[in-house]
This record gives sequence, C-alpha cells and structure tokens, in this order.
Amino acid sequence: MAAPSTNTRGLLERSIRARVPPLLTDLYQFTMAYAYWRAGRHRERAVFELFFRDNPFGGGFSLFGGLQDCLLFLCSFRFSDQDVEFLRSVLPPTTDAAFFQFLRSLDCSGVTLRSVPEGSVVFARVPLMEVEGPLAVVQLLETSLLCLVNYASLVCSNAARFRLAAGPKRKLLEMGLRRAQGPDGGLTASQYAYIGGFDLTSNVQAGFLFGIPVTGTMAHSYVTSFTSLEEVWPQTLVAANSDADPVDVISLTKGWLRRVCELLGAESGKIHEGELAAFLSYAIAYPQNFLPVIDSYSIACGLLNFCAVALALCELGYRPAGVRLDSGDLSGQSVEVRRVFRLCSQHFSVPDFDSLVIVGTNNISEQSLAELNRKENEINIVGVGTHLVTCTKQPSLGCVYKLVEARGRPRMKISEDPGKSTVPGRKAVYRLMDADGHPFLDLLCLALEPPPEAGCPLRCYPLGCKNSPASVTPAQVTCLRQDVFTEGQVMQPLCSAAETRAKVQSSLQTLNPRHKRLQEPDPYTVALSEKLHNLVKELQKSCRSNNNFLLAN
Amino acid sequence: MAAPSTNTRGLLERSIRARVPPLLTDLYQFTMAYAYWRAGRHRERAVFELFFRDNPFGGGFSLFGGLQDCLLFLCSFRFSDQDVEFLRSVLPPTTDAAFFQFLRSLDCSGVTLRSVPEGSVVFARVPLMEVEGPLAVVQLLETSLLCLVNYASLVCSNAARFRLAAGPKRKLLEMGLRRAQGPDGGLTASQYAYIGGFDLTSNVQAGFLFGIPVTGTMAHSYVTSFTSLEEVWPQTLVAANSDADPVDVISLTKGWLRRVCELLGAESGKIHEGELAAFLSYAIAYPQNFLPVIDSYSIACGLLNFCAVALALCELGYRPAGVRLDSGDLSGQSVEVRRVFRLCSQHFSVPDFDSLVIVGTNNISEQSLAELNRKENEINIVGVGTHLVTCTKQPSLGCVYKLVEARGRPRMKISEDPGKSTVPGRKAVYRLMDADGHPFLDLLCLALEPPPEAGCPLRCYPLGCKNSPASVTPAQVTCLRQDVFTEGQVMQPLCSAAETRAKVQSSLQTLNPRHKRLQEPDPYTVALSEKLHNLVKELQKSCRSNNNFLLAN
Repeated sequence: MAAPSTNTRGLLERSIRARVPPLLTDLYQFTMAYAYWRAGRHRERAVFELFFRDNPFGGGFSLFGGLQDCLLFLCSFRFSDQDVEFLRSVLPPTTDAAFFQFLRSLDCSGVTLRSVPEGSVVFARVPLMEVEGPLAVVQLLETSLLCLVNYASLVCSNAARFRLAAGPKRKLLEMGLRRAQGPDGGLTASQYAYIGGFDLTSNVQAGFLFGIPVTGTMAHSYVTSFTSLEEVWPQTLVAANSDADPVDVISLTKGWLRRVCELLGAESGKIHEGELAAFLSYAIAYPQNFLPVIDSYSIACGLLNFCAVALALCELGYRPAGVRLDSGDLSGQSVEVRRVFRLCSQHFSVPDFDSLVIVGTNNISEQSLAELNRKENEINIVGVGTHLVTCTKQPSLGCVYKLVEARGRPRMKISEDPGKSTVPGRKAVYRLMDADGHPFLDLLCLALEPPPEAGCPLRCYPLGCKNSPASVTPAQVTCLRQDVFTEGQVMQPLCSAAETRAKVQSSLQTLNPRHKRLQEPDPYTVALSEKLHNLVKELQKSCRSNNNFLLAN
Repeated sequence: MAAPSTNTRGLLERSIRARVPPLLTDLYQFTMAYAYWRAGRHRERAVFELFFRDNPFGGGFSLFGGLQDCLLFLCSFRFSDQDVEFLRSVLPPTTDAAFFQFLRSLDCSGVTLRSVPEGSVVFARVPLMEVEGPLAVVQLLETSLLCLVNYASLVCSNAARFRLAAGPKRKLLEMGLRRAQGPDGGLTASQYAYIGGFDLTSNVQAGFLFGIPVTGTMAHSYVTSFTSLEEVWPQTLVAANSDADPVDVISLTKGWLRRVCELLGAESGKIHEGELAAFLSYAIAYPQNFLPVIDSYSIACGLLNFCAVALALCELGYRPAGVRLDSGDLSGQSVEVRRVFRLCSQHFSVPDFDSLVIVGTNNISEQSLAELNRKENEINIVGVGTHLVTCTKQPSLGCVYKLVEARGRPRMKISEDPGKSTVPGRKAVYRLMDADGHPFLDLLCLALEPPPEAGCPLRCYPLGCKNSPASVTPAQVTCLRQDVFTEGQVMQPLCSAAETRAKVQSSLQTLNPRHKRLQEPDPYTVALSEKLHNLVKELQKSCRSNNNFLLAN
C-alpha cells in the first residue's frame, strides 16, 4: 500500500512558503536590521555560521537535515505589503519610513550559502552552514534557518539511532503525527524520519509532498464499531482472478473458525462476534491488504478471528498480509502468533501463512527497540510514534547561528562561559579519513589556507584539549562543504527524500563503529588548524589588552 | 515595542488550512473510511471522545488548548481534486472509484462537536471533546484533531506551570521559535504559551496572527559586528522633544563613560570599543527602546558601556529601557547590576535609572525559574525558549480519540492493559464544586441521566478505585462541555488569544492550591455515575460471556 508521488519543486516551495512565512522570526532580527540600516551598514558583507554544540542523545554523531527546506525558503524569502504594514505597527513610531521600503525590496539575491550536504554524518562544533551576504539580510535569515535545521537534524538523527537499534532487516514505520509538536512537527518528523532510515510512514501528506511510502490499515475503533455479523456487507466475495459466482464468506469463515478452534484447542466461546465482523468487513473491502489489529479485546480472540478470515481469503486465492499487535509484551506475543501461523500453514497446507507479517506498535522507544532485539521475537515491522517524533530523550538540538566575519574582518564572541565563545573567521572544513576509509577528524581551517593533503602529517589543535597540539596524517581528505546557493540561485538539483535517505545510509556506513555506538561512543575529534588556532589566540589577546580609545579623544 | 494586530477570522482560517491540509492524517483513516463506505456504514451516526490518560509534567492538572484551531479546521475540511487523485494512487487499485467521488463531496456539515471551553483547567480521563457525526467523517477527523489538541494543551499547561513558578509579578517572554519542533511547533508554542500565562513573545508571526505583544532588541552578533566607534553612524542625536541642534553623542557618551568608571572605580581599559559602538549605534536608532544584551564580552564591560550610553540618553531627555543578561549566574548578576543602577541614579541624580528593566535569558527551565525565586534577584522579565516550547520535561501529552457510540449503541474497548480500556457511551460531564468554590470532582454520567444537583448527596465510582463507591455532596455543579460546532456551524464567536488567556487565569484561580502544587499535588478525583458504572460492568460481562453465534448457524 505504498506509492511515491511525483513531486514538483513548485509544490515543495508552496509548502515551505505556507509553513515558514517571512514574519515567522524573532522581532529582534528586525530591530537589528533597522539599526544596521540606520548606520548605513546593511549592505556590508557578513558571514554567519550555523552549528550545534553537543551531539544529541548522548551519542557520538548527528545527521544534518533541513538544507533543502532552507534552500526553498531562501528562494521564496520576500516581504509582502501586508507583512511590512504589520512590522510598521510593531516597530517604534520613530522608525524611518524608508526602512520599510527597504524591507519591501529585500530578497536573497545577494546571499551565498555553503553547506554540508543534506543527510551527512556531522559532529558538534563543526560549522554546517556558512551564510554570506548583506549584513541586514543574513541577520534576518537567522531564526528561520535555525528553525528549519534544528528539528530536522534532530529527528533525522533520532531516526538513525532507531535504525541502528533495530538492525538492518526489520522494517520501521513512523506513525507519530498525532503526538507531534504541532502539525508541521508531524510533517517534518515524517520527512526526516524516512531520511534517517525509516521505511514507511502513516502520514499521507508526507507521501504526497515527499514521495514517502505510506501505509496503514485499521484502528481499534474500527473493530469496536462492529457488534454482530449482521453488519457485514456485502457478505460475499468473488474468488481472486476468477469469473465464478460470489462466495458467501460468512459461512466460509465460520467453517474455518471451527477448524482453527479445533486445531488450537480453543473454545469458540472466546470469540468476540463484533471483532470477527470487523475483520470480515475489512477483508471484503481489501482482500489483498488484510492486516487487522488483533488485540482490541484479547490477543487470543483476535488471533482466532484473524486465522479464520485469513484462511477463508486463502481459500479464495487471496494473500492476507498479516496482523498488528498494539499492547502488552510484543516479543512474547509475536512468538506465539508465529507458532500459530506455522501450525495453520502445516495443518491446512496453506504456504502463504508462512510469510504473514507481524507488526508491533506500543509506545516503542530506542531502548525498548534495543530490548526487543535481545529477546526472541517474530516482529517484522515496528511502528514508532511519540518517542521518535518528539525526541523524548532530548527534544532540542540547540543549533546556533554566529557571526564570524563582518566587513572582511573576523569576529568572535568571547564569553565568560567558554562553551559559548565562538571560533572566528571564514573557514574551510575538511574531513580526514584513516587508511580504512573511516573519518577520524574534522579540521576547521581559515578559508584561504591550502587544504590538508593525503599522506602529509599536519599539526592541529583539537577542541576541548586546552591548547595542546596533535599531529595527524590523513589517508584521504574531503572538503566537507559545497556551494549550494549562490546569488539567489540553487546550485544543485534538489534531491528526493529517497535519494537523501540513501546518502544517509552510505554516510553512516563509513563511520567507525566506535563513533556509531549508541551508548558511550568514543568522542570524534574536531580540531582547528594551526593558523585558525593562532587567530583565536590573537583575538582573545586583543580583547584583553587595553583599548586606549578613551584617552585618544 | 508591543502592539496587537487586528485579527480576522479569514487570516486564521487560511493559516490553519495551510498548516493542516486534509491529507495531513494517517492513511488508515482512509482505509477504514473505505471499509465503512463499502459496508454501507459511512453515514451511521457515531460518537468519538478525545481525552488524555495522565496529567502532564507530574502535575495535578492540565489546560485544554487547540479548540479554536479545531473549529477552523472543521470549517475548512474538504478534499481537493488533487488530494483525491493522490489518495487514488496510494489506496489499492481494487478500491471502488465511487469512493473517491464520495471523498470529494465530504465536509463537516453533519458533524457536531461538544467541548470543554478552550483554556479550561482539565484533568486526565475526562472526555474533553465529543465528536458526533457520520462514521466515515468523524473517523477521518481523528488524527488532525489529536494533532491540534495534543501539543497546544501540552505547551499551554507547561506555560501555566512556568507562570506559577515565576509568581504573578515577573513578566515572562517566550522566545523559543528557533528551538521548536518545526516552524509550526514554534508558532503554536508562541500562541499557547501566551494563552497559558506568558506576557510577550519574540515571534512576529504570532503577533501578526494572534495579536500577541511582541518584543526583542538585539543578539550578540549585533554587538560583535562592531569593532570601533568609527562605525557609529549618524554620530549625532537630537534631544527628545526639542528643536535644538543635533548633539555629538559619541563625545557625550565618552564623557559619561569616564564619570561612570570613576564612580565604580573601574579601569577604562576594561572597555571593549566595539561593544560601546554597538550600543551607541542602537541607541541612536532607537533612543526610546535601548535594551542591549550586555554580556557579549563580560558583564563588567557591558555594564559600564550600558551606563555610559544610557546616561547620555537621559541627558538628552530619553528614557533607556534596560539590559539583558544571557549567561552565567543571572540572580547574582542582576543584584550587582541593580546596585550599579541605583548608585548611578543617586550619584548622577537620574531617577529614570531606578526603573530600568533587567531581562534574564539563559536556558531557563521550570526548575531554574523556581530556584531563581528562592534567591535574591532583581530580574524583571524572564525569557524562556527551549524548555518551554519543546516541553523537555514531557514532550507529548498523549491524547487519544476513542469510539464510544455507534448506531445508537455504546461501544467499549476492553484491553488486557486496564489503562487502555475505554468508558463507553455518550456522556455528560459535570464539575462539582465544594463550599469554597473549588472544583473537587469531575463526574462522567450517561448523556440522558438527570444532572447532579447542588446540595444533594450522590453516589459515584472514582476511577482507579476498583469499584468502591464514594458519596459526595456538591455545593455547586457546572456542566463542563458546550455545543461549539453544530451541523457545520461554529456556535460561538471566536475568542482572541488575550480573551482565552484571561479565561485560563480565572480557571486556574478557582483550583484548590493542593491540586495546583507543581510538585506532588493531591490527585483530583474523576468519577463515573452509578448508571455509567453499571453500563461498564454490563459490557465487560457481555464481552466475557459466551457468544453462541457460531453454533447458531
């Protein structure tokens, strides 16, 4: 029940414009923009960097998501007359009217964005995006870019952890829309959970916009809405690929129910008629997609009803799909359910019963998924909602957007809280690989430095190591960032969600298992080049030294 | 810097339509709708209830939010041709074509919604909304209604807890957009944080759509973008309310800086020229709204620079607004900052320095806010971001939507997990008050029972008390739910965010402090009437009893 849609860029652009209008930002972006404009500095070239300070979920890595949404946002960034009128009403009445004219004329034609590719494995403190352009414009972009990257990267990283915990074989279904933080929280979650390694979503709009395979069958309410077999309509089904007369499936199913009860030594008194009616009714509507939730009353009852309806379908040449378990001990139940499927398959000679799918959905967390893997179980598809989409373990990534260059000169924030100081200057970022092809160090250099060379030793200053240099020799070097948006133009074709998802998996595969461990991973090294390290020292020193400007006048 | 906008219902409707398109739902709603349609049951009257199972954040209550968004959603609920074409592509090819015609014709004209008023104090297990209408339609509404209520109620409740922790006097500013779970997570957070008791938001779009007062001044990047006084432009300012010649504010400020350094025994060598330039430049742009962030380099430096610029503004007849502290020990810093303000006020005879505002923003949580209150501090406005908007303490409320009646008969899900069983039947919900006017019990009755009467004792069965009845006598009784949407029409005028915010505060005021305590509150009682309790027993019994339908055929 999955079919990717054909996505057009126009559809995605409209979606972003609706979800991220240009007023969806902090007011101080406008007050600052005005102060820059008033001082005649609004067209000065400035460079901001976007990064996060700690890898999420206590892990050793993160994934980078949200770039494509940022690009669509940049393309559509423009204030309407209505926007500007509203701003006029909230800014102080002394604000110069010409500033609003200026806002009305703004777009991103002067902006350049260098970025790590979407779906890359990334690490804390590495600048993922460099945004360069007129000071007032790149300042105005801050909140929207942060909002688009923060949650996308977080949920993508969370999904990747679920994928690692689940192992490569089990299918993962995202079904968190109803528990997400707002409608768009649900849409973004579906998009980036898939990119991070999930296989399916329940979210139809995510299928529509991003071509993600969608799936779903029934809720408990469907089951409880039936009370008797009289509600089943039509009561007949034509055998698959045949022109024969319709068959009375109610009688057929009752016959199978007797045989199944006999085989399993179950009393037919256990059977809930409403549930059987619900299953039958659904099977008649979707004879090729029969996958009911079987614990609306009890698993024992649901399993008997399922087997009866599914065996009737098999007799008519259809292939039932499987069952969903939604409460209790999923592992134990799945083993029992599989045992019954095998028994039916053998006893009634129905080979299709060997390949029935068991879906498990019950408040699954990364931890409960890992536990599931340690137990014997027969679950083929795991559905995850709340813990995936709201990232309960850590609901925010904490990306920041910091000025590193203005008017061609490096800028630095020197905080009394050392974790809040920034690394100044326009940079190039290189990823250094060892002889096995595993990345082992991300190197931040000044933009104009020559790149490190494979096979050549280099001296660098790992962050968090208090000025102690290290010497490393990369076997391979890649430049981590690319020009993705230049002077108003997107530089590369947009990728489909499926393409980005494939990139994520290949990026994760190169990562050394010691960094990929979900618990207590080895920390990955991020280091400054010697030149960049010297620049930091120099700016710190000049900040501490006496500024004699007061005496100079 | 706050001005509510004039909101039109059309604006809000467009916003909901853009954020909650009708495909933003789980696929199984459509597969179930088809199965109902196929069985001819799609027009049957059905009743669903929306509720949550546990009060959030370990607290004793919740607030109910999202109703107004639900009403706007119901008004706009309609599938376009494009939507239906997409559904055709994802549903099995055997799906009857007439079903898509049926979808195209759907709207909410047959739906009735009874609901607790938006902004009410509510409790776990009480059905907040009752959705009645054609089975297929009310089934299709499930995910969207849950998505709109879940996060809105959660963040509104979280905001109310921050409000209780902050005490009534301190102003609270919501500034979480950049850390929210997706753009709409940020917008919804701003809307419902205000409704829950915050005073201000940084989110401009929230001001635009909901008339919430917006505020904001500058980021650290603004400060670090300046390096020297040469960048200040213009360098003059005209005194307030005067026609005099512009004054050279740089010289004026330098003079004040020398005097302030002298007064405080500070060395002018501590001063960072770029920061002074940034403050001056901002003050020239906004002489009436000067509130800089003063810890870009060090508080000591920022405070000297602030005082110099602010004293220059005062000399010119302007009133500076205050300062923002964004790192370190906010309480301790605020006390020192206030001491300096008082000293300046006295020493320089500048009374406006007594009323300067101190804003504190640094990863504030409910806990750190409560701690702040236990220490001596001088913070007037607290800005809260991540912990408020992502609800780190509990990022999901877990609302559910359960079928309670179909075809005029009560329905019940009987789960092996007792917490997942539902309470059957259409209900009336009453809130019982004690002699002090505090609510003490919410009573769920069958819809057709006579309401409880003030002063008359009644027998009921508190939930979670295993069939032990209780006898209570209410001093007052109110009916908790109202008809808010009938046959496609909204029954009441929509409230502004400010009106709903006022309702929240008055609803919270009636609550007994023992239920309102943030830590270890006394649990509030929710009970079933005797008749409803008997219905539950009856359905449980009939489920357990032998269904002989198998033998009957």
